[in-house]
Amino acid sequence: MYGARIAKWDKAAEWPLTIAAILFLMSYATQIIAHPDGFVNQLCEAILWITWAIFLIDYVTRLTIAEKRWRWFYRHLLDLAIVVLPMLRPLRLMRFLTVLAIIGRGTGNVLRGRVVIYTVGATVLTIFIAALTVLDAENGAGDIKTFPDAIWWAFVTITTVGYGDFYPVTLTGRIVAVGLMIGGIALIGVVTATLASWIVERVADQTTKTAAATESQVEELRREVLELKSMIRELRSAA
Amino acid sequence: MYGARIAKWDKAAEWPLTIAAILFLMSYATQIIAHPDGFVNQLCEAILWITWAIFLIDYVTRLTIAEKRWRWFYRHLLDLAIVVLPMLRPLRLMRFLTVLAIIGRGTGNVLRGRVVIYTVGATVLTIFIAALTVLDAENGAGDIKTFPDAIWWAFVTITTVGYGDFYPVTLTGRIVAVGLMIGGIALIGVVTATLASWIVERVADQTTKTAAATESQVEELRREVLELKSMIRELRSAA
Amino acid sequence: MYGARIAKWDKAAEWPLTIAAILFLMSYATQIIAHPDGFVNQLCEAILWITWAIFLIDYVTRLTIAEKRWRWFYRHLLDLAIVVLPMLRPLRLMRFLTVLAIIGRGTGNVLRGRVVIYTVGATVLTIFIAALTVLDAENGAGDIKTFPDAIWWAFVTITTVGYGDFYPVTLTGRIVAVGLMIGGIALIGVVTATLASWIVERVADQTTKTAAATESQVEELRREVLELKSMIRELRSAA
Amino acid sequence: MYGARIAKWDKAAEWPLTIAAILFLMSYATQIIAHPDGFVNQLCEAILWITWAIFLIDYVTRLTIAEKRWRWFYRHLLDLAIVVLPMLRPLRLMRFLTVLAIIGRGTGNVLRGRVVIYTVGATVLTIFIAALTVLDAENGAGDIKTFPDAIWWAFVTITTVGYGDFYPVTLTGRIVAVGLMIGGIALIGVVTATLASWIVERVADQTTKTAAATESQVEELRREVLELKSMIRELRSAA
Repeated sequence: MYGARIAKWDKAAEWPLTIAAILFLMSYATQIIAHPDGFVNQLCEAILWITWAIFLIDYVTRLTIAEKRWRWFYRHLLDLAIVVLPMLRPLRLMRFLTVLAIIGRGTGNVLRGRVVIYTVGATVLTIFIAALTVLDAENGAGDIKTFPDAIWWAFVTITTVGYGDFYPVTLTGRIVAVGLMIGGIALIGVVTATLASWIVERVADQTTKTAAATESQVEELRREVLELKSMIRELRSAA
Repeated sequence: MYGARIAKWDKAAEWPLTIAAILFLMSYATQIIAHPDGFVNQLCEAILWITWAIFLIDYVTRLTIAEKRWRWFYRHLLDLAIVVLPMLRPLRLMRFLTVLAIIGRGTGNVLRGRVVIYTVGATVLTIFIAALTVLDAENGAGDIKTFPDAIWWAFVTITTVGYGDFYPVTLTGRIVAVGLMIGGIALIGVVTATLASWIVERVADQTTKTAAATESQVEELRREVLELKSMIRELRSAA
Repeated sequence: MYGARIAKWDKAAEWPLTIAAILFLMSYATQIIAHPDGFVNQLCEAILWITWAIFLIDYVTRLTIAEKRWRWFYRHLLDLAIVVLPMLRPLRLMRFLTVLAIIGRGTGNVLRGRVVIYTVGATVLTIFIAALTVLDAENGAGDIKTFPDAIWWAFVTITTVGYGDFYPVTLTGRIVAVGLMIGGIALIGVVTATLASWIVERVADQTTKTAAATESQVEELRREVLELKSMIRELRSAA
Repeated sequence: MYGARIAKWDKAAEWPLTIAAILFLMSYATQIIAHPDGFVNQLCEAILWITWAIFLIDYVTRLTIAEKRWRWFYRHLLDLAIVVLPMLRPLRLMRFLTVLAIIGRGTGNVLRGRVVIYTVGATVLTIFIAALTVLDAENGAGDIKTFPDAIWWAFVTITTVGYGDFYPVTLTGRIVAVGLMIGGIALIGVVTATLASWIVERVADQTTKTAAATESQVEELRREVLELKSMIRELRSAA
């Protein structure tokens, strides 16, 4: 019951949540990059509040549906943080986890192809969001003052190159940077692991053209021998 | 039909295209490093146009030969970009993809040995081309002003060291840098994966001297048992 | 005898040593970050001496229990260094090895899950201790002057990003930095290797649904055939 | 004949060559770090020439012993470069390859344990030699002016951290740096690959307690069945 209802809700909520996340990201980006006045700013602010409400509804619904509520609550503390934290202005950057969390929800079983697509997608999104949040957090304190510079800084950081022409100086900016660096280590790991898995497989293909004997094959053989045995037993009793 | 005709063309065009790519690269390098005047400059310009025409002919021919043209077109959008973009001056750097694409065409089935050779070749070429394009793109805007400095910068970037003594400041230069960083991540990945595959194999060689039983081996055994069964059946009917 | 007594001691000493290590770390951190005066400073100093005494007792006890004392002494030179070196003020940073050594003691058999937990724990602790020791070692000589800056520098170093906004200038600070860099290389290695192992397994799961024939399975089959043989032998003797 | 004589020479020359390499390195280090005058300088110079003569003798002897001389010559061009290049002052840094080449000679068959020992040894030696050569090459041109700074720079470079507080500015210094960066990529690769091989093995140990059926095992089973067949054939002919 429990899993089925959650799964049904997840499927129904998938598209609305994705659209809400995209709208959220666009409004957030517009506010930070363009510093809009008057109506546009109010529109962005409105969208940020509406999409936040949608995330809240999603959280509350899933908590209500869940049978073992405490267990669900304990296992989804991150989801709670994502919903509650945007209220606190200085921790606004945590909001970006929402987007990645919703995207990540759909990737249950993983293959090498999916790993590649998900890695590229997550990397591009992480760079975009990190550039936005660092720009918002620094707010003129350091050298990162334009969006192109922030994107450039994010690339230099996630690839662990670190020229040092741009670097964050505020606490929030540095937390984003640390997240990006950890993402960079993970990126190197995923790229290498995928390549390693592929090369190991290719090399194995070349050396072992002969397939290994399987359990079912030997089992079938055993059945044949057992039959043989019963035939001989009959023969013996006949003699 | 389709695959056969494409393959025939690819084989026939391999050498002319490689020579065209080398000439293209040499002319491009001469223009950027030596800033030649008069005749030499005109010669370089002429070679750039002629080799571009050769790439165009190659693209059009392959599109004409292809049976399912829309599918081919859809799957070779990168080839189109390589042919069309050099017309736009600020995107001239995209031309370097041509050279790598042609070299990459020949590497269908891959082994560890080939991976090593291809990695070294691609890395050297990437560093050379990135140094050229960044020098062309920066054009005195940043600190990268001589070809040796550009080569040094390319090495520092692709190995993800990133001292920060040289870094691009223009948009085009930064796009080249990002490409080089991604190349660096891939380089670490390929080196590690090849080593891992080699070590895993060596360790496996030491632990499993005994070969695993193969399918065909067990299949043969099963045939023997089946024969045995028919023999006993005969025996029973005789009794 | 030998192994049993050492193991018994290790088990009994595990909690006291961990608590001692935590107290040691807290006092050390308090001294370096807060520069306390009067009573608090004396308390910290007292705790540092008491915990050091506990480490000394642990070392002497284990040396006494050991049967082949010279062999044990030779194999535990690092433990000796950890106990003796804190006496030398300029090498005080070596003390931090104590904490990692005690934590490391409990990780005998390793699985992927444990690898992940241990990696995260060791990384966080390493960053914390490295930030403390570098702050203590630099002591106003370089740009690293506050604890948050030291933590930021430790993250930038362990992820091999290396912006260059902060770097140690004293010998002791640089030794800590080199340790952190080596930790960074190890971190990349562990992350990649764990991911590689996971992807290789997943890919293998997908391609080989059929389990390989096992030794015991074939052995059972052989027993059946042997029984068959003895039955036929009986039959022959009966004929 | 060929292999045997070369192997005999290699074994006999191993110790003299290693001692020559160590003396060479010590004299080289003394010249660069201490800038000695008068007698000590002449002693160092003498040792450099004598050890160079030993390397020359080793090269000529191996070339003379070899049966297929041209093939040997072609395959050992690097050895020739190592012997010839030290004559050219600006390429003096190439000498350091001698030491690594001699050490590398003994590592024919490789296991994980040997990989670890060899990696640590080669890394330490590479850092030491790179620091020496860069100090010699820069010679006051850049910021790298003392041996401790050079060692620190070498560590920052080989771990791909690259703070940018020190970097080479001369061509020779940069060639050494590129070598060190490539060494760093290789280092990350070896560390990761060794860890991956170890984790893959550990995980495999846990999941497959049951050993796979071997070829010899199935072969034995087949012999049993064949014997059975001949027994039944006898029985039939008897009936």
